[in-house]
This record gives sequence, C-alpha cells and structure tokens, in this order.
Amino acid sequence: MSERRMKAVVLVSGGLDSATALAMTRAEGLSCYALSIDYGQRHVAELKAASRICAALGATEHRVMRVDLAGIGGSALTDFNIDVPERETPGIPVTYVPARNTVMLALALGWAEVLSAETIVIGVNAVDYSGYPDCRPEFIAAFEQVAARATRAGVEGRPLRVRAPLISMTKADIIAAGVRLGVPFADTVSCYQADEAGWACGRCDSCRIRRAGFAAAAVRDPTRYRK
Amino acid sequence: MSERRMKAVVLVSGGLDSATALAMTRAEGLSCYALSIDYGQRHVAELKAASRICAALGATEHRVMRVDLAGIGGSALTDFNIDVPERETPGIPVTYVPARNTVMLALALGWAEVLSAETIVIGVNAVDYSGYPDCRPEFIAAFEQVAARATRAGVEGRPLRVRAPLISMTKADIIAAGVRLGVPFADTVSCYQADEAGWACGRCDSCRIRRAGFAAAAVRDPTRYRK
Repeated sequence: MSERRMKAVVLVSGGLDSATALAMTRAEGLSCYALSIDYGQRHVAELKAASRICAALGATEHRVMRVDLAGIGGSALTDFNIDVPERETPGIPVTYVPARNTVMLALALGWAEVLSAETIVIGVNAVDYSGYPDCRPEFIAAFEQVAARATRAGVEGRPLRVRAPLISMTKADIIAAGVRLGVPFADTVSCYQADEAGWACGRCDSCRIRRAGFAAAAVRDPTRYRK
Repeated sequence: MSERRMKAVVLVSGGLDSATALAMTRAEGLSCYALSIDYGQRHVAELKAASRICAALGATEHRVMRVDLAGIGGSALTDFNIDVPERETPGIPVTYVPARNTVMLALALGWAEVLSAETIVIGVNAVDYSGYPDCRPEFIAAFEQVAARATRAGVEGRPLRVRAPLISMTKADIIAAGVRLGVPFADTVSCYQADEAGWACGRCDSCRIRRAGFAAAAVRDPTRYRK
C-alpha cells in the first residue's frame, strides 16, 4: 500500500532562487505543484523559463495565473513609464512591486487549499536581496498566521506551513545548493529587463546580485548577457 | 490651507455589506478608492452593481482588477461544474472561494501602497454570514500583521490599518445603518446566481440571509427576485 505523497505548492518565477527552492522541495520527496504568477511584469521571458524549469525538475503540474498588478502601477517592473535603475540606489528600490509576495502567497494559498496541500514554498531570500520588505522572515511568519486563519484546513486543525527555505542563505549558498540538485541555471532568468529570448541586461540590481553570486560560489555563470 | 484627506481602499463587491462599509467610510470623511475584484465568479451582475454603488456613494475612484481564481477551481462560485446549493448545509459551504478574502486584501494592499492610503476596508461580517473562515476577526487581525510587515509604509513605521466595520453587526443592523447612510440597496446584488440583469434567485444562502435581514430590520426589501 502506497502512502499518499505530501503536496507542496511552490511559487516558481523563472529565476534561480525559486528554481532552487523547487529542487530542494522535490529532493525532500514532496509532490510539487508549481505556480507562476503573471502580474503584468516586463519580463515575460521569466514565464517561459519557469515552464522549462518545472519540466526539468519534475514538478507534478505547472500553472500560470494572471493577475493585473500593472493596473495599480507603482513599480518599474510593471509600469513601463518607470525606468529600471542600472546603478545601486539606497532604500527600497523602484523595482519593488507593491504587495507582490502577499498576492503571490494568497494565490498559492487558494490553490493549496483546493489541492489539500500541506505546504507552500516561496523562494525569497533576505540576505543577497534587493531590500524588499516582503522578503523578510517576519513577513513569512505573519503570512503563515494568515494561512492558518483563512482556510478550511486551518479551521479544522491542519494549518498550512509556509516555507522559505532560502531565506537565510547567501546567493552563493543558493547557487551551490542548486548545482548539487541539478538546477538548470542556464534556463533561469533573473534579469529585470530580459528580452523575450531570455538575454539578460547585465546591469540591473538582479543581474548584479546574480553575477556576484556565481563568482562567490566559484561556479561558471551560464547567463547570456547582452553586454 | 486644506489638509490632505485620509485615503482608504475599500473592497466593493456589489453586495449590500460592502456597499454599507463604503458608505460608513465615506461618512467618516475619508477619500474612498473602491476596488472590485473580478475573480471569474458566476455573478458578473455584481460588478455592474459595484460600479453603480460607487458612483452613488461618491467613491473617488473605482477600479476592477481581474484575477483568475476560476483557474484553481474548488468553489461553486467559480466552477460551473459545482451547483450552488439551495438549502442550508452544515460546515463550510461549497460556495466558499478558497483564499478569496486573502487574495482581495492582498490586491487592496498593493493599491493602498501605491496610493499611500492609510486604511483598507473590507465588508466582511462574522454574524449573519455563511461560515467562511476568512470572515472572522482573527483572520482580519492576522492580515493586518501581514500588511504591517509586507509594505514600505509598515517598514517606515506607518502600518496600514485593516478595518472590517461590519464584522460584529447583524444583517439587520447593517441594513439599518445602510438606510441611514443612503445606500442604494436596490442597486446591490447579493445572489450567488444572479442573472446578468441582476435578478436574484431567492433561494441560495446569500439570498436567504439577505431576505431575513430586511425582514428583521423591518425595511422593505427592494431585491428583484426571480421567484
């Protein structure tokens, strides 16, 4: 008699962090239901990358949900009138998408409830990150409390876990873990202004952090930079 | 010199509860930015109702955001293969939409952040309600903690308030308050299976609770029931 496999809804953006989080969750033996959110971002190349990564890492299913965060504006990632900065800036950067992780976790929560999944996994990271408030451990902990109170499972005494396995890892640690787990890094897209074919700008915050991470991990960077 | 008006993002579904919550927030003098979420529900009549209500009650702006909750299924309100029940059923009913209020509050949070609004208002009610877990005070309190941790404003010491002014009112209290504040109840649509012109079935949970509320408040029920 086979035991029912534990299920996780894993948020997969197409970047290297969430790909590694997916690989780590698969390595623990969970069935992974990958969820990508199309929030009207500039980088559609990310969504194509997500689909390749999910296939490569053995996700049970991959869904893309569309939500129109571009409609509220306020971010260089969804508003084409705001330029993506190519230099480091102090404070919370303009690439911050308002409430993005809250929205993505809320959608993951809905699907987790339908699937009777026990776990939600998000690949946020509080070390080599861009200063976004919704990438911090206290945010994840607060959302887990919402999940416990919002859902049928929570009410019935089976609260969902919200896991952020990369939260205290450096980018170099994440890359090293990904290499061990066979993450196809060449397929991942981190750039905030990647072109449709997935070529990276090499200049935005996300490219800078990624490039430094490969260097620190002493792993060859397979990213295709335009310059 | 005029002081800057306080801003609230108010979730407006087109039903009578959220219309009353909007009227209460307007009566306190706040500028109201009304947000309706089109989550692929059966009752599109609700969205037309929301637009009439916002105009009648003086919302500063009304936006409709689309998010595809129908894609995850699991509810009679978004899945056309599940019948809306026309009798009372024990426990959490099939009309429960997984994580709906979490998703709606998350989207409201994003817009509130862009607007620099101080408050989010949601018209949930824990008394005459349908047994949904995300209509309870402990859920609202947990979401307020998420809002404080997820946002730029929260990080900078200006946490958003999440208010549910109807949470401990009976349906009759809500209707009485709405009458005093001039809520155009004839324009509101509560029915889970309203037709496109807004005629109500008179038989679903939501119709039953609404009809009983008007009776208890001794207010003439202006709802157009099909039977």
